[in-house]
Order: sequence, then structure tokens, then C-alpha cells
Amino acid sequence: MAKEPSPIDELTIWDDAKAMIAKARREGVETVYDRLDKQTPHCKFCELGTSCRNCTMGPCRITPKMPRGVCGADADVVVARNFGRFVAGGAAAHSDHGRDLIEVLEAILEGDAEGYRIKDEKKLVRIAGEIGIKTQGRQLRDVAEELLERLFSDFGSRGKEVSFLSRVPEVRKEKWAKIGVTPRGVDHEIVEMMHRTHMGVDNDAPNTMLHAARMALADGWGGSMIGTELSDVIFGTPKPSKSTANLAVIKEDKVNLLVHGHNPVVSEMILAAARDPKLIARAKELGAAGINIAGLCCTGNELLMRQGIPMAGNHLMTELAIITGAVEAVVVDYQCIMPSLVQVSSCYHTKFIDTAKKARFTGAIHYDFNPKTAQKQAYEIVSLAVEAFAERDPSRVEIPGQPVSIMSGFSNEAVVEALGGTLTPLVDAIAQGDVRGAVGIVGCNNPKIKHDSLNVGLAKELIKRDILVLVTGCVSSAAGKAGLLVPEAIEMAGPGLKKVCGALGIPPVLHYGSCVDNSRILQLCAALANELHVDISDLPVGASAPEWYSEKAASIGLYAVASGIYTHLGHAPNILGSETVTNLAVSGLEDLVGATFFIESDPIKTADMFDARINAKRQALGLDK
Amino acid sequence: MAKEPSPIDELTIWDDAKAMIAKARREGVETVYDRLDKQTPHCKFCELGTSCRNCTMGPCRITPKMPRGVCGADADVVVARNFGRFVAGGAAAHSDHGRDLIEVLEAILEGDAEGYRIKDEKKLVRIAGEIGIKTQGRQLRDVAEELLERLFSDFGSRGKEVSFLSRVPEVRKEKWAKIGVTPRGVDHEIVEMMHRTHMGVDNDAPNTMLHAARMALADGWGGSMIGTELSDVIFGTPKPSKSTANLAVIKEDKVNLLVHGHNPVVSEMILAAARDPKLIARAKELGAAGINIAGLCCTGNELLMRQGIPMAGNHLMTELAIITGAVEAVVVDYQCIMPSLVQVSSCYHTKFIDTAKKARFTGAIHYDFNPKTAQKQAYEIVSLAVEAFAERDPSRVEIPGQPVSIMSGFSNEAVVEALGGTLTPLVDAIAQGDVRGAVGIVGCNNPKIKHDSLNVGLAKELIKRDILVLVTGCVSSAAGKAGLLVPEAIEMAGPGLKKVCGALGIPPVLHYGSCVDNSRILQLCAALANELHVDISDLPVGASAPEWYSEKAASIGLYAVASGIYTHLGHAPNILGSETVTNLAVSGLEDLVGATFFIESDPIKTADMFDARINAKRQALGLDK
Repeated sequence: MAKEPSPIDELTIWDDAKAMIAKARREGVETVYDRLDKQTPHCKFCELGTSCRNCTMGPCRITPKMPRGVCGADADVVVARNFGRFVAGGAAAHSDHGRDLIEVLEAILEGDAEGYRIKDEKKLVRIAGEIGIKTQGRQLRDVAEELLERLFSDFGSRGKEVSFLSRVPEVRKEKWAKIGVTPRGVDHEIVEMMHRTHMGVDNDAPNTMLHAARMALADGWGGSMIGTELSDVIFGTPKPSKSTANLAVIKEDKVNLLVHGHNPVVSEMILAAARDPKLIARAKELGAAGINIAGLCCTGNELLMRQGIPMAGNHLMTELAIITGAVEAVVVDYQCIMPSLVQVSSCYHTKFIDTAKKARFTGAIHYDFNPKTAQKQAYEIVSLAVEAFAERDPSRVEIPGQPVSIMSGFSNEAVVEALGGTLTPLVDAIAQGDVRGAVGIVGCNNPKIKHDSLNVGLAKELIKRDILVLVTGCVSSAAGKAGLLVPEAIEMAGPGLKKVCGALGIPPVLHYGSCVDNSRILQLCAALANELHVDISDLPVGASAPEWYSEKAASIGLYAVASGIYTHLGHAPNILGSETVTNLAVSGLEDLVGATFFIESDPIKTADMFDARINAKRQALGLDK
Repeated sequence: MAKEPSPIDELTIWDDAKAMIAKARREGVETVYDRLDKQTPHCKFCELGTSCRNCTMGPCRITPKMPRGVCGADADVVVARNFGRFVAGGAAAHSDHGRDLIEVLEAILEGDAEGYRIKDEKKLVRIAGEIGIKTQGRQLRDVAEELLERLFSDFGSRGKEVSFLSRVPEVRKEKWAKIGVTPRGVDHEIVEMMHRTHMGVDNDAPNTMLHAARMALADGWGGSMIGTELSDVIFGTPKPSKSTANLAVIKEDKVNLLVHGHNPVVSEMILAAARDPKLIARAKELGAAGINIAGLCCTGNELLMRQGIPMAGNHLMTELAIITGAVEAVVVDYQCIMPSLVQVSSCYHTKFIDTAKKARFTGAIHYDFNPKTAQKQAYEIVSLAVEAFAERDPSRVEIPGQPVSIMSGFSNEAVVEALGGTLTPLVDAIAQGDVRGAVGIVGCNNPKIKHDSLNVGLAKELIKRDILVLVTGCVSSAAGKAGLLVPEAIEMAGPGLKKVCGALGIPPVLHYGSCVDNSRILQLCAALANELHVDISDLPVGASAPEWYSEKAASIGLYAVASGIYTHLGHAPNILGSETVTNLAVSGLEDLVGATFFIESDPIKTADMFDARINAKRQALGLDK
């Protein structure tokens, strides 16, 4: 007998989502929730991390009766190997994204990227200077070329440390050197992890886990940071601006094209093409009021941060956005794009267009997007969307609710500018206790958790306690829809935070960008620590991924912890089959890197944990008596 | 009720192995066979490749009733992702090994590697020339430094193709370019695969599989080839020499130290230290007749090829060697070292010593081996082994049988020299049909297959049919023990092969080295193709991994196929859950790269398949009517 589908009210906190899940059920469109129902219960071995298939002597499963795999690996080794590869997937995703940005910069310098340019020349020169490149009296081009060389070399094997380690407090770098986790090269650490986890290589779980930390640091301070910084250089450094969020940003009277994925290289061109008068004219010819580009997931965040496009939703909204029946095209680059979107699109008139050679979707329209031909390709893609408007079935269109106002664009540069040019006012506010600390809430959605309940619940609970919240990735959409990303949200904050944010005219929850932009948070922590002459682990800060699902989130969590930031996960990764690995994650790392993970599924209890940690750190710094 | 252990006669074809499995059972020592019994039956999902744990929305299992994972991935996508990562593990292992050799060369050039030197200067200059480095009139050091730069850059992101593609026939390179599988950089392709297999990136199975091919090519013509060539440069290019094989190379009256793993960097120093008169004197003081260094697995092959050390055995002999009770120390570097060896060692007086930071074993004695301190460390390690002789319990010593003679050391350089300086005599012999073709039999052991039955069975069957056999890795030990690696083995060969090998005084089965040395076979095929002005896929050649188990073997198989070599696997990888992936592997690749895999567990039928293929290729070349 088929299981009853889960009650819709249990699946999400949002009315727009509920309406679309109901519509999907009416129309017989399968969603992620249906598939989760079918896939539950999950395999216990895979959940515990105790199944191994890294060779064909197996596959093996570790149990009390079978305590070792065919090779002799025990639960600790199997779990560590699996988790090592899990983090490798995440670090690789971010880092390969970073590499793609270097390649775009290279194409620009070679005059092979029409439509792209160096938009923030000042930032280019500044970051070059930060990694030790001579900039004074030099042509921009020369500096850019040396920067290119240096960043490419971060992906090579000859470095002693990745370039942006120049930002890390010395005391932290010494800790890393002592335990052997200084990240040498981005690809190097990832490939070494793949080597270590081959049968008969690394068979000591703590040793594997330490390398996972090294690899994650290569992501955070390497691949991701390069991704963020070069995106700013090429597309502009974000500045605060207003926009809107939720499914109602999809417009019944317009051609709606959603951009989805993580890398702004494609979508920036799509946005530019959508402003082409010829395409707008054609849209009007077909009866549309214009062309509306809205964002999903982190590609959405990238364009929201820099271009202020409206945000249709986060991970669990991607299927639901199509189910409105009003989406002419979904244009994707890579990462976190549920393959089901092809099927959902095919239930409507929606064109599903993939754009990366390395991220194709069976059944999609494929464009092999590259900087050289980007403008022309973007024009063709938008044109496809415009023409699809004619195929829309108005009787199947349902766009729920009204859009919510949001404020976005909080790069560190923007924050420093808002503070009057230095971090000192923020440091002072922390010292005085008006801002007791800060927590970055990041990561994804996971259908196992009521959609955005923890993301929003934790953010609200923290700002009440005068803890500033920075959000990225899927959490930013959630915070936006909850009304937390506008200055008026100070009414939900504690008195100290209300005072400080009120004076600055900023929200108590700051939208800090996409997932790679967690590197902005790292950089901010490093800058605060340097300002206070302490280690990052001495700061009253924390990180949280309440509803995480992806390998990238595991890498982010691990680089946060390894950087000295106490980090919350809403549910455990698949490591509970090993006591050694689990204990290392939730306590043993404290001695090694000055921070640990903690796992908690209740937002209030999570806020209590951060509260206690922040209090302890404040006391140690002599800020509170 | 506990299962009966499998009858020993079904486990292996070797008397030495049978004796030791019986001893292990008497003494209560657990072996790989016991663990396989416990782990059987295996998880069907993991076997089919249809379980996914690449994110925490799952883990998921694909079945007819649950045709998609939570994200929407179907069986094709899940299988392709899993196989992509499986091959990535193999390519990473080989390639990280190659990188380690570059680092040793760098240390030599920086004067930071006492005990190491450039032993084959001629080869260094020759390979530098082959990849386009100017060599004439230059100092060796200058050439070496440029070679170092170039090979390091093969691990970077800026290359258009890895250096040794200079060896590949143009027609083959054009095929690769056409389907987009030209390997750009070793780490680059591996990291891109890890990115592609993250949730929501590559969701088109054939696209993922093609990238797997590209990554495997980066291994074969990149990482592995660099490993082989630099090992020759640093430790000398192998020349034919005689040695012995099987467990009886362990000597009752000597201190026995076994070297195990894959990289000769450690073991070459161990061997040198074992010749130290002080250590030999100490061994004699303790009642031993001397110090005996014998090999296991591919570290054994590396030292056998260049130094003629005796070979104790292959993968499934590694536990059994310790069970003789006569092994004072096992010194390991990395790869294919069953973690159970720590436990087996602890049942005897055997010291288990690991030497690589990236390959530690819980419970082992650890040396953080590096070129700078290698000599001193090697001395200490051998000293540990010598002292352990005093702890040996003679009543538990049992060394079965007598050693078998073998001939080893067939580098391409040695073969060309044996042929009088060019490949022409071999080409002529092939043209005339005395040698009808050649097959490389490579790879591992797998306890699911009667130990060495296919490795030996296939080799015997092929030479009967006048097909020259080249062996590497674990197959070389097997061939050696079967008496196939001596010139007298021509008696088991067909008349043509007997004539040719007889005239040259070489065995009909040539020991071509370790697993990374499969790159020698690639190079030979390329050279033959270039000599005949045809593509590699036009040659009457094949490759086989009859008893493979490891991710490296999957990478080797795939680079062989992608290079145009028809390739046999004794059992399928975990891909059978996807028809798309399976069909691509066993037929679809023919159109793309001119070769496929075939799966067959019977050695006679396998030989028939090779026979048919070789006949077809000979006819197409106009060699046979």
C-alpha cells in the first residue's frame, strides 16, 4: 500500500511553498518531498558512514558482527574515508568554480571575453597588494597578469600556502603549521584526499580527518575566496541595495526567466541580454509586459548582491517556482540544481537550458557557454525564453502572495564603508556589548527539515539576543522572506543590536552573498581578530548551517571550525558510525584548532549554545565581567 | 550458526599460499578470506552502483519502485557519479605518486636529498627532449630544472595538454580533441570530476563517463607516466636481470624485512641501509646469517625491476607472508596495503612500520620519511628489523616450498636494446605473424576470484596462441611463480613466439614493472603505432585486468580503452545498475575511442576474445589474408 504523502503544513513554513506543493499534487507533478517519502527509511549503513565501496573486494558494511571490511578497515577508517571524500566533493565544487573565474579573468586579459571586463579595478589592485604583489606605479594590466599567475599557482603543486593566507592572523597560521594543516594548494589537497582514501593508503582516522581540515581550508581561504574576490573584480563589489523575494517576484504579465546555480559568469550575460531592446520588443509583440529575470539559489544571490535582481527562492523553492506555470525558462550553470527540474519543466512550457560542459542534464537544451561567445549565446537563450511565452498555458498559472522587500549587497567593503571607513565602530559596539557577537548562518535546505524553519528560527532567536547575524546562500532567501533583511527588522532585535543597526540604517541580519561568499565572513573574522590582536578562535563569533544538505556545506563547516569558529550543524553528517571521528568533530578539534562542531536540531537550544560560547569568549577577552 | 570457512583448495592455486592459510587457521589469525566470508553477500545497491550518499538529502537507493533519488537523479546518473569518483580515486593515487617523484627530483636539485641522485642522466635528457625541452649544449642541471617546471605544470591548471602527449600518435590526439577528452592537467581533471559528481552538477551519464575517460588519460599519460619516468631517472632504468619469487624467498636464517606499497622512494633507501656493514654485523651478533630484503606488491616490483630483490608475493600474499612467522618487519609506503597487516603483524613478532604522512596506520610504528633525512631513517628502520630477530619464535616459523626463478627488468629501453636498437624486429615479427599480437595482463588479486587462477590461466593461454604477454603489478608475481618469467617458458608458447623469444633469449611473458609502469605499455603501443603510421586502436594488442580489485585498476582500464586498447576485466565494476553506463563501457566507446571493455571470468573464453580481436586487427592492417 502506498504511503500517504506528508501533510503540507509539516513541510515548509512558507505560504507560497505550500500553495505550490498543493498545486503540484493536484497536477501530478513529482517533487522532492515525494521522492524523500519514497526514499525513507534510508540505508542505515550509508547514514552511519559505515558502508565502503572504494574497491571491488567489497562493497563492505561494518557491524559489530563484521567489524572489519574485506581489506581490514574498521568503522573508524571507513567513516573517515567516506567523510574525507564527502568534503572533497564540496571543496572541489567551490574550487573548480574559483578556477572558472580565474579563467574568465584570463580571457578578459587576452581580449577573448567580449561583454566581460574588469569592473572593480580598485579591488583588483587592492587584493593583488594583499597577497604581496607590487602595485605601486604599475599598469593595471601588469598587476592583473601577475595576480592571474599567482591565483593559478594556488591550484598548482609548488606553493607552500595558498595566497590569501596573507589575511590570516599569524597565531592561527602557527597553529595550522604545528598540526600540519596549512593548505598548500587547492587541487593538491583534494587530490591527496582522493589518494589517501584509496584502499591501503591512509588507515588512521584522525590523520584522514586532519587532512580533511587542510583540504577545507584550501577551499575557504583558496578556491572559495578566489571565487568571491574575482567575481567582485569582474562584476563589481556588492553595495547595499533593495530588492524583493519569494515566488511573487515571478510576474504573470512578463516573460519569466530564472537563473539557477552558483557562478555569475553566465547569468550576468543573461541579465544584460534581457535588457536588449529587440528582445523586449519581441516579448511585447507576444503579449508580455517585458522580460523578468529572477534568481534561484546562489546564482540568484550573486546577481541579487550586485544587480539587485529579485529572488524567487532557495533550494527547496526551485521545483516550486516552475510549478507556478509562469516560468518560460530556467537557465542553469552548476551545483545544487536538482536533476528533477528537467522533469518538472517538462510538465509545463518551461525551457530548461544548461550552459556548462561539465554540468549537462539529460533532456536539457544545451549551450556550451564560454566567455568568447557569451553575449551571442545569452541573446539566443533569452530569445528562447521570450518565444516560450507564447506556449504558456494561462489556465495553469498560479503565483501565490506578494513579494517581500529585502536589502542585500553587504560585502565587507560595503560594511566598512557603512561604518565610516574602518571596522573600529563594530569592534567598539562589540566591546561595549551592544553587539554581543556575530553568527554566520549559512547553507542549504534539506527536505528532512521543515523548510526554512531552522534557518529563520535561529536567525530570529539570535538577533533577539543582540547577536548580529550574517546570512549567505539559501539562508538569505529564508531571512528575506521572513522580513529580516530590511532595516525595519530591528524591531525584532534586542536593544543593543536595535541601537547599532538603527543608527547605521542596516538590518540586523545582513545578506553577505552566495555560498562561496562565506569567504567574506572568514575575511571579516580575520580582520576583526587582527584588529584585536587575537586569534579568530578568541572572537565572540559562530557559524551555523541549520538545514544543510550538500558536500559544500560540509567543507564550509570544516573550514569554519579549522579557522577557529564554533560551528553548528542542524543534523550530523554521515559519521556517527565512528566514535573516533564523531568525538573528534564535536570535542577533539577544540584542542587542535580552538573550535568544534555541535549538532542540534532545535533553534532555541542552538541559540543557547551560541550564547554560552559568546559569553565565554567575551569574558576571556575581558569584555564582560 | 557461523558459516564454514571456504575450502582452502578453492581459494588459491599456490601451495605456498595454501600452507599459510592453513597455518593462519590453526593459529587463529584472521585473513582476507575470513573477512570476505563475513562480508558476503554484499549490498546489492552498492554492487550495482545504485546507492548514492553524495548529499544528506539521502542516502538514496535506486530501484524500479524508487527510480529517482531525493534530488531526482536516476540510476544512470547515480552509477555514473559513483563510477566517476571510483576512477578519480585511482587516478589520484597514481598521480599523487607521480607528484611525489617530482618532489624528490626537486629535492635532489636543491641538494636536499642525501642518498638520492639522478642515476640515469641520459634518460633525463631524452625525456626532456621528448616533451620539447631544448637539451643540446645545455648543462644537465638546467635541463633537469626545466623538466621539473614542466612536469609540475602538468599538475597545474594552465596546460592545454599533459606533456607526454607528445608521444601519442596525432590521429589519436585528434580523436581525443574531437570528443573533448584531451587531458589538460592531472589534478585539474580529478578535481573537476569531484565537482561534476556533487549534487546538481553533471546529470548526464555519458558526459560524466567521458570526463572519467579524460581523467584516466591524465593518469596514464600524466601522473603514472611521470611516476615511471622519474623513477627511472632517479633510481635507474630497469635492465633484464634474474631473481626469485614466492614465499620461500623469506629466509629462515636471516633477518627478513619486507617492503610493501608502490613508491620506491622509501624502499630504495631501506635496501641501501640493509647493506650497511654495521647492521649486518649486528644481525650476525643476534644469530642471523644476514639481512634479507624481499618485496611485496608494487614496491616489490619497483625494487625487483631495478635491484633484482626477491619477490615474496602479490596482494593476496601480503598477510600470508607475515604468517610464515619469519618476518621481522614490514615497511610500507602507500596503496593496497591491507590495514589488516597491522593486526596480522601483532600476532607475531613482526614490526609494522609506516613511512608516509599521508598513509598512516593506527597501531603502526610511524616514520615521517622524507628525502632530507631518508638515509638516517632507513638505517633506524632496518635496525628495528634486525633487533626484532631476537624476538622471533622459531617454533612458529614455517616457510613453504622453494623459490622459483624469474627474469625481470623489461623496460622499453631494455626491450629496444634486446632488439638491437629499434622496434623494427618486433614490428617485423608481428608482420610475419610469429608474434600475432601482444596483451598486457595487469592489475591485482581479488579474494572473490581463486587467487592467480585467471592471471596465470590467461597468460598461459595467450602465449600458446603466439600472443606476447607483458605483465605488471600483481600479475607479475603470479607469472613468476608459474614459471612464465624465464626464457625456458618458451616451451609453453606457440611455435612463433617460441622462435622469436628463443632467438632473443627472453621469456614469452615479460615483466614490465609495477602498476604505474603500465605507462610503459602505453608508450610501447604508441611507439608501435607511430612506427606503423597507424592509430593505437589499429594495433593487434589488448589489455586485461583479470583479478582486479582497486580503483587504480579501473583508471588503468579506462585509460587503456580511451587510448584505443581493447580491454578485458575479469569482473564488472559496480556499474551494472545502469544500462546506459554499462552499454557505453562494453560497446558505445568503440565508436568514440576505437575500443571497449569486455567482461569475462573464464580465461579460455577471454583468450578467444583477444584472439578474435587480434585477428580482426591483423586483417585490417593487411597482415593476414
